Amino acid sequence: MNFEALYTLIGDRERVVPGSDRIEEKYLTDTLGRLKGHADALVFPLSTQEISGVMRWAWEHGVPVTPRGAGTNLVGSTVPLRGGIILDMSRMNRVLEIDRDTLTATVEPGVVLQDFQKQVESMGLFYPPDPGEKTATIGGNIATNAGGMRAVKYGVTRDYVRGLECVLADGRVIRIGSKNVKDASGLQLKQLVIGSEGTLAVITKCILRLVAKPACSLSALLPYRNLEDGIRSVKDILMSDLNPTAVEFIERSVVELGEKFTGIPFPAKDAGAYLLVTLDGGAESVRDRTEGLRQLAAKTGSSGFIPLSDAQEAARVWQVRGCLVKAVEAVSEQEPVDLVVPISQSAEFVSYVHQLEKESGMRMIAFGHAGDGNVHLCIMRESRDDAAWKKELEQVMHTLYRKAYELGGLTSGEHGIGIAKQPYFLENTDGAVLAAMRSVKDALDPKHILNDRISYLGEEKV
Amino acid sequence: MNFEALYTLIGDRERVVPGSDRIEEKYLTDTLGRLKGHADALVFPLSTQEISGVMRWAWEHGVPVTPRGAGTNLVGSTVPLRGGIILDMSRMNRVLEIDRDTLTATVEPGVVLQDFQKQVESMGLFYPPDPGEKTATIGGNIATNAGGMRAVKYGVTRDYVRGLECVLADGRVIRIGSKNVKDASGLQLKQLVIGSEGTLAVITKCILRLVAKPACSLSALLPYRNLEDGIRSVKDILMSDLNPTAVEFIERSVVELGEKFTGIPFPAKDAGAYLLVTLDGGAESVRDRTEGLRQLAAKTGSSGFIPLSDAQEAARVWQVRGCLVKAVEAVSEQEPVDLVVPISQSAEFVSYVHQLEKESGMRMIAFGHAGDGNVHLCIMRESRDDAAWKKELEQVMHTLYRKAYELGGLTSGEHGIGIAKQPYFLENTDGAVLAAMRSVKDALDPKHILNDRISYLGEEKV
Repeated sequence: MNFEALYTLIGDRERVVPGSDRIEEKYLTDTLGRLKGHADALVFPLSTQEISGVMRWAWEHGVPVTPRGAGTNLVGSTVPLRGGIILDMSRMNRVLEIDRDTLTATVEPGVVLQDFQKQVESMGLFYPPDPGEKTATIGGNIATNAGGMRAVKYGVTRDYVRGLECVLADGRVIRIGSKNVKDASGLQLKQLVIGSEGTLAVITKCILRLVAKPACSLSALLPYRNLEDGIRSVKDILMSDLNPTAVEFIERSVVELGEKFTGIPFPAKDAGAYLLVTLDGGAESVRDRTEGLRQLAAKTGSSGFIPLSDAQEAARVWQVRGCLVKAVEAVSEQEPVDLVVPISQSAEFVSYVHQLEKESGMRMIAFGHAGDGNVHLCIMRESRDDAAWKKELEQVMHTLYRKAYELGGLTSGEHGIGIAKQPYFLENTDGAVLAAMRSVKDALDPKHILNDRISYLGEEKV
Repeated sequence: MNFEALYTLIGDRERVVPGSDRIEEKYLTDTLGRLKGHADALVFPLSTQEISGVMRWAWEHGVPVTPRGAGTNLVGSTVPLRGGIILDMSRMNRVLEIDRDTLTATVEPGVVLQDFQKQVESMGLFYPPDPGEKTATIGGNIATNAGGMRAVKYGVTRDYVRGLECVLADGRVIRIGSKNVKDASGLQLKQLVIGSEGTLAVITKCILRLVAKPACSLSALLPYRNLEDGIRSVKDILMSDLNPTAVEFIERSVVELGEKFTGIPFPAKDAGAYLLVTLDGGAESVRDRTEGLRQLAAKTGSSGFIPLSDAQEAARVWQVRGCLVKAVEAVSEQEPVDLVVPISQSAEFVSYVHQLEKESGMRMIAFGHAGDGNVHLCIMRESRDDAAWKKELEQVMHTLYRKAYELGGLTSGEHGIGIAKQPYFLENTDGAVLAAMRSVKDALDPKHILNDRISYLGEEKV
């Protein structure tokens, strides 16, 4: 690779790391560290112009480019399998504007979610998307259309992206979307880039929608005899006028893992499963709706109703809910799955998981977003050796995804496809749909230089 | 054209009208009837399979195809300028399923919006998108990403499309999206088809998101001294926890036209402008928030606060608001404009309109959705002859759109580009963005047979 060209484009040698052996390993993998790639150069751009220059050069020379944010993804979306340039966006992390008059913020893609949330909240504003990984970047969130806890009331990242500035594979800069609320002005390329996992364009600037910060937020725990009863009541919650922010489900057996890991006891030990519901809004409204939720809990067979109005108790319960992946990882290596099924099918899917656990001997921990059917599974390796783990995991994964699709589900609700979930996505997606996706990729990146390790979009062309 | 092939594909001669002279004029135009096209055949398909057959045949023979719903569009989106086949979807009008368990409905694209709204509301459910034209079809609403009154709280049509079945230009059928709430599974083609005005695919089935029907809905009228004061208070309304469904603005001078047309007197005659705000939800919550709105009205300088709790009074006020386009048309031919500006710019834009009225001598009636910056303008022809109207209208339109873009706005908030708004869209949209849109069109419809009169997507290829 001609590094002199890169040095000239970037103009600062410190921001170009040449050669695979000099690139830190974390840049060659994702947060799980299992899939590893290689690269010829790691570049830290500071401006759209620099990115445009790098892309134009890469385009001319047919060099693959892998953009990355904080690298917190779980499915290998940032693993540079084909070498070339890693474009690390983390230094483009300025909040450029917070515009109270249009309720928007304009930020660079490397801004870290939790920093941004804090900043806007300190101004009485609110950025609702709240995926589990708070150290992810906004650019990464947009590239995967990240979801999270608050999606029931507020929607997902897509719903908060008003506009994007992007660099296309050939270096051209496009501005798609705007600060406007409504847009019926031409093909919606912005919507196509959101969730495209860095395969269509490099996101260089983001105009985000903000809302007013809710004055008050209260969670409540609803214990149920078993998960089926809990999930059944989700429909009643959604059909009520309670307007919940979050509706999470956890089974007792999973809570026990969390209790062990954190040392924190969870309330209502005799339950089989729990719903964890959050309400937010004005203080009076939250109070009224909490009362409504209490009545609904009683009517739907909950064995109790535990409003978490004590801030410390609420924090303890959420700490147990929040630690589950880490609690599993403390016991065993695990494969994370974030498939999604229609909201009515979560209970059936989870009971299928229990049956499959028995049949396969593979332990699986299920929890997730009951309000939107997004089921998180941790498939546990336990003491399996490499060969057994690889073989059995693959088998179980194929079976799980097949079942999810049978129930009307999809491969991923919020993590994306990346490299790790491709086999299951490909196996269950119609050929005509894949062909249409590929033709869109061909249109915007005909040389397939952008994140093309995502092979569902077609063969390597470089 | 080989009509025998079409007869065979459709299998029912009554559903194929051959020859331009036998096709009723309404199929060759839009709701304004000014732009007129021609066609070789008008086809009324009843199934996806028939549409797939027609498209495959059209694709092989390079025949242009123009899909249409109820033809209520205002910008020529359904005018078949290039001849070929008109695909009228209005007979595919079955509601196939209303699924309470997933809160979705599956419908054919020809279902009429108001019929569908009534049906789901009779079941305690609610389909929030509420564009002004209630006799439009759901398919047409999706093709233009129709917005409407309730967008402030509920969002636009895009936010209620869970899945689509489409026929591509070459006849292939794709199912994109699903009943699932979250989706991070591959490129989001569904999002691309929404708002594409029939240029990328024929929509043949729609999975729509439903919500619980709000128990209660109440509107209130807030009179202000002038529009600037009214618009300024919109920000306070949006930053409050009042969660308004609709926030409309109307100036007194415009109300007078409506009063004259309907014979209905409007309250608070001494105001310069009004905000018309709707709140919905549980009865208690609406009551509390109405009180909050009253306080906010006083604080923001409203000269009064008129809750429209009397159903007849509410109906009268909304009848005046709803009749405005017709009230203008009763006086003069008019050109409808639905541009959008950032919410903070509506007042400045409308005062610019007033200034332009004086300078140009062209009368313009402005009203619209203050909660989302979607400004509707009726530009009135009055006594101008054909030549003067054409020339002056074009001049004034270019000036208006240039100003809107200067303020950060866009050509269309909800009507789409169609044929009528192309000059202004093309003039104000960056070449790189247009090129990217064209490459996506080329990818999915390389022969440009689908609605290709929309020339911003490129030259005719057939």
